[in-house]
Amino acid sequence: MDLLSIKDPSFLKGMSNKDLEALSQDIRQFLIEKLSVTGGHIGPNLGVVELTIALHKCFDSPKDKIIWDVGHQSYVHKILTGRASEFDTLRQYKGLCGFPKRIESEHDVWETGHSSTSLSAAMGMAIARDLKKENNYVIPVIGDGALTGGMALEALNHIGHEKKDMIVILNDNEMSIAPNVGALHNILGQLRTAGKYQWVKDELEVLLKKVPAVGGKLAATAERIKDSLKYLFVSGMFFEELGFTYLGPIDGHNFEALFENFSYAKKTEGPILLHVITKKGKGFRPAEADTKGTWHGTGPYKMDTGDFVKPTKKQPPAWSSLVSETVRRVARDDERIVAITPAMPVGSKLEGFASEFPERMYDVGIAEQHAATVAAGLATQNMKPFLAIYSTFLQRAYDQVVHDICRQNLNVFIGIDRAGLVGADGETHQGVFDIAFLRHVPNIVLMMPKDENEGQHMVYTALNYDNGPIAMRFPRGNGLGVPLDQELKTIPIGTWEVIKEGYDAAILTFGTTIPMALDAAMRLEKKGISVRVINARFIKPLDGKMLTALFNDNIPLLTIEEAVLQGGFGSAVLEYAQSQGFYHTYIDRMGIPDEFIEHGDVSCLLEEIGLTVDEVVKRISIMAGKKQQRA
Amino acid sequence: MDLLSIKDPSFLKGMSNKDLEALSQDIRQFLIEKLSVTGGHIGPNLGVVELTIALHKCFDSPKDKIIWDVGHQSYVHKILTGRASEFDTLRQYKGLCGFPKRIESEHDVWETGHSSTSLSAAMGMAIARDLKKENNYVIPVIGDGALTGGMALEALNHIGHEKKDMIVILNDNEMSIAPNVGALHNILGQLRTAGKYQWVKDELEVLLKKVPAVGGKLAATAERIKDSLKYLFVSGMFFEELGFTYLGPIDGHNFEALFENFSYAKKTEGPILLHVITKKGKGFRPAEADTKGTWHGTGPYKMDTGDFVKPTKKQPPAWSSLVSETVRRVARDDERIVAITPAMPVGSKLEGFASEFPERMYDVGIAEQHAATVAAGLATQNMKPFLAIYSTFLQRAYDQVVHDICRQNLNVFIGIDRAGLVGADGETHQGVFDIAFLRHVPNIVLMMPKDENEGQHMVYTALNYDNGPIAMRFPRGNGLGVPLDQELKTIPIGTWEVIKEGYDAAILTFGTTIPMALDAAMRLEKKGISVRVINARFIKPLDGKMLTALFNDNIPLLTIEEAVLQGGFGSAVLEYAQSQGFYHTYIDRMGIPDEFIEHGDVSCLLEEIGLTVDEVVKRISIMAGKKQQRA
Repeated sequence: MDLLSIKDPSFLKGMSNKDLEALSQDIRQFLIEKLSVTGGHIGPNLGVVELTIALHKCFDSPKDKIIWDVGHQSYVHKILTGRASEFDTLRQYKGLCGFPKRIESEHDVWETGHSSTSLSAAMGMAIARDLKKENNYVIPVIGDGALTGGMALEALNHIGHEKKDMIVILNDNEMSIAPNVGALHNILGQLRTAGKYQWVKDELEVLLKKVPAVGGKLAATAERIKDSLKYLFVSGMFFEELGFTYLGPIDGHNFEALFENFSYAKKTEGPILLHVITKKGKGFRPAEADTKGTWHGTGPYKMDTGDFVKPTKKQPPAWSSLVSETVRRVARDDERIVAITPAMPVGSKLEGFASEFPERMYDVGIAEQHAATVAAGLATQNMKPFLAIYSTFLQRAYDQVVHDICRQNLNVFIGIDRAGLVGADGETHQGVFDIAFLRHVPNIVLMMPKDENEGQHMVYTALNYDNGPIAMRFPRGNGLGVPLDQELKTIPIGTWEVIKEGYDAAILTFGTTIPMALDAAMRLEKKGISVRVINARFIKPLDGKMLTALFNDNIPLLTIEEAVLQGGFGSAVLEYAQSQGFYHTYIDRMGIPDEFIEHGDVSCLLEEIGLTVDEVVKRISIMAGKKQQRA
Repeated sequence: MDLLSIKDPSFLKGMSNKDLEALSQDIRQFLIEKLSVTGGHIGPNLGVVELTIALHKCFDSPKDKIIWDVGHQSYVHKILTGRASEFDTLRQYKGLCGFPKRIESEHDVWETGHSSTSLSAAMGMAIARDLKKENNYVIPVIGDGALTGGMALEALNHIGHEKKDMIVILNDNEMSIAPNVGALHNILGQLRTAGKYQWVKDELEVLLKKVPAVGGKLAATAERIKDSLKYLFVSGMFFEELGFTYLGPIDGHNFEALFENFSYAKKTEGPILLHVITKKGKGFRPAEADTKGTWHGTGPYKMDTGDFVKPTKKQPPAWSSLVSETVRRVARDDERIVAITPAMPVGSKLEGFASEFPERMYDVGIAEQHAATVAAGLATQNMKPFLAIYSTFLQRAYDQVVHDICRQNLNVFIGIDRAGLVGADGETHQGVFDIAFLRHVPNIVLMMPKDENEGQHMVYTALNYDNGPIAMRFPRGNGLGVPLDQELKTIPIGTWEVIKEGYDAAILTFGTTIPMALDAAMRLEKKGISVRVINARFIKPLDGKMLTALFNDNIPLLTIEEAVLQGGFGSAVLEYAQSQGFYHTYIDRMGIPDEFIEHGDVSCLLEEIGLTVDEVVKRISIMAGKKQQRA
């Protein structure tokens, strides 16, 4: 059918299973085609085609609340709720968001991006429904990976206890992004292979009466025998013990099975968990065959072969690779180094480290809090943990960084990946808060390299630092292509470097914005304004000596950071000037304003927020002019 | 025996159970006496006297790592490791810390204060042990309350999967601080009453062979029957399913039972969980009889009656009461208001609200992340959630505040209790980071009242605000004793007020430091320096109009905050001055320096960090002098 003509999911109500199967094929074809051009989360969405159709046929969105955990699997939902025509703009600037977005549709009742929030949100919605005496279903859809996040487990514990009416869809594809880990994963594995058991209450009652009493040394109560029999015939005792009715496993690609179980769930009181088995990448051979998570989210690809569209020229090393491979190199001489990732072994490019040092590599699952504190525990025993984590996900471990790592001043090296704007993933994933949420924490060293050569030296510096926690932020994407020194060396903590001399003004910046500063300096040079460019590679501690010299020279300063301005690096410079009693220096700051930054190409976003060479030129021209006036 | 003569736990090795029982009595008497003077966590410590003695007798600390979750139950451990003589200084400035502290003793291998970190730390230590091929036991001791924290559940999932050797002591006293909630609590309840089942493998094997096959419609596999029988005879399937060997329940006040189970645990491979039942307050009648958590942590009390030593004069209302009772009052007219607490109904004084609106009050257990996102979920449905949470515990929900509440711009009212220095609880509990970790988050309004009258109006303002998230921080302890207006009113968002006029300098401050500012202003007045004092009650947004006027007047400014300076309120003022192009204003900032602040009386701590009237007088005098020089 013509997917572009869909306005809302009501058209599904009258369709036969055969028609729905045809629709599934159309949606799969549509997704495979569209995403081959735009890229996107192809694997997760191909896996939930039937599930999403079935949900929208059996439930009544938006009255019934369908909540997509993580949200990267909401493309089919977007098609069914009238957004097919926008897929050419998927994840592009001002285009369709890759996650649920309330502003896009009334059917997007909850926005996601980070994992494991759906059950808590559902609990809030269920409480509201019951207080308002309304009558609707609340249906969080959560993956088996997201279920290992602490907040999802907190929610299970609470929901089961409160016995709130709620239909939890556990979308089990045996993967989170990478293959799953954890005891829960094992439990689900057993359930998957156990075949279909459903607790038919009446039959169990009958059976119970026939069971002879068990006596002797191992005597058990009647209640206990009943529980035990329940365990015999009911899968999912883990969830049953937590207060949920468990139903499953259910073939997530079979409409009949889905409808049957949904209708059972609708009649069930209290929380019920439907264990739905789906296949990531279903219907697209290259994605179906994926075991590593390569087809979780991709760039453009060739539809016929599944080959990824490669950049035409050779790329410099990816930042994640550079960092992880340098850690690996240093780990050959330092047995204390242990790498920890919260479910991102692929994204953090730790495969090489893992294959060389399998016993020194821990993927703890989607569990950032635990990851940070395992690192702290290791450090108390004189080990050298490397915590590989994305900037945006480190937010989940803020308290563990403060309370466990920094307060105890432990030697943990935090590699903050995807720092700065990340582009297509948008609001929920921009790595723009880490400076502001780390800079005020005592004891931590925070740095960012200007290029991959300095990056490898910083990794070496961090792994040789034994005076407390140290973090290095680095961006998404690839390095600049600079030559790499053979020998690794340490960089003195808290030292900046002048990378271009100049006398009329100075730019203090670090990381990705250094090229912008150098470009601007060149243009200003032509206008007769001589600009010093300083690689302020240590965000904490600042290079007080260099700053004081700048203040003494009374040279106007511009700070630039690809991070929020409030409490950021520029504020640190203001604080330093104030605390040292320099009140006369012109300081200007560029960075990310006080708003959430949407998705889109990073260059578009930088343009929109005014982090551009033009703006740098303009700001410095004004400052230099003012200085001249005063002189 | 003379507890003061204890140097380390080695003396326990040769003692008989009878001697140990006598020792237990001595320790109880010691704690009841000492804490009657100093106050402290009497309930939890009386509960673990035998358990702690047994651990130190059976294990070899510090080679074996005993890790106290939360840590307020470590007093007995402190006595047994040679610190009895320091109990007169407990929780006092420069005295014995109320939590484990590595600097105090080599037996304190892990510092705590916040809940639920012990299992992750233990995992780190176990990994380190195995990599170093060392041979020691790792023994986290965690309460049933702390077990509901998401990071503890993340850890269970990971430890069970990795099968690390570890002896987890589940100290089950049926309380966290308040009585426990959650499905896990129910599971533990069933285990407690189920009697003692231990899985005797051989016997089970024999039994299995005798079981007839179960046929027909409900046919089950042999494996499943085996699992079911295991369930029949083994308690703790919840933990067994997660990969732990479960042992229990064990009487935590019976040495023989403890020794028998410890020695079984030592021989067991992989992670084992010992479910130990203890009685909070054991041996001190008033504390034993407590069902609400009143005897969890106390001030001084009378040993004979258990009456608390009350202040001699009537106290102004406690801040927590004022806030919760105002919410309750407003809730009578606004059905949308729902209160949420993560396990702190008593501390947050929500008992009144709970008894009046039981269906609108949710204690979600120690689960700050879930609490915040439940609030967000409620707000999407046009409810008015009031999230009552301590400043230091809000750190656990940083990502949920950013990603779920603020990013979606939802109307959640966060009541940030215990903001600022808290005193005796020390480093782990000081509420000094919240301004720095919230100020940079888009959309949030952050405020702090000068007294309880303004406080009640701010609560009303927050509950009537419908433009996004709004947070009010308020201190530990009591109000100032000012009269309360009968009628509640709203305060215009982002407005400050001048509470004392003056022309030579201005102090910008809020909350607890306003009296300090007023005192200093009086003293300065006598020196001929006229000081304006401004109640900067909105930390975000700032009162730009008033600030701009101050800058235009070029009046020197001093900011004061009982919060970290980095990224704090003073920095916000610096940022504003810079962004508005004011480079000539003298601005000085007072606040908490870049270090963790230890425990002690708040007045001592303020003295130590220089947050005093004297210092304000000094700083203003210098500023006013400088201004005069320039004029």
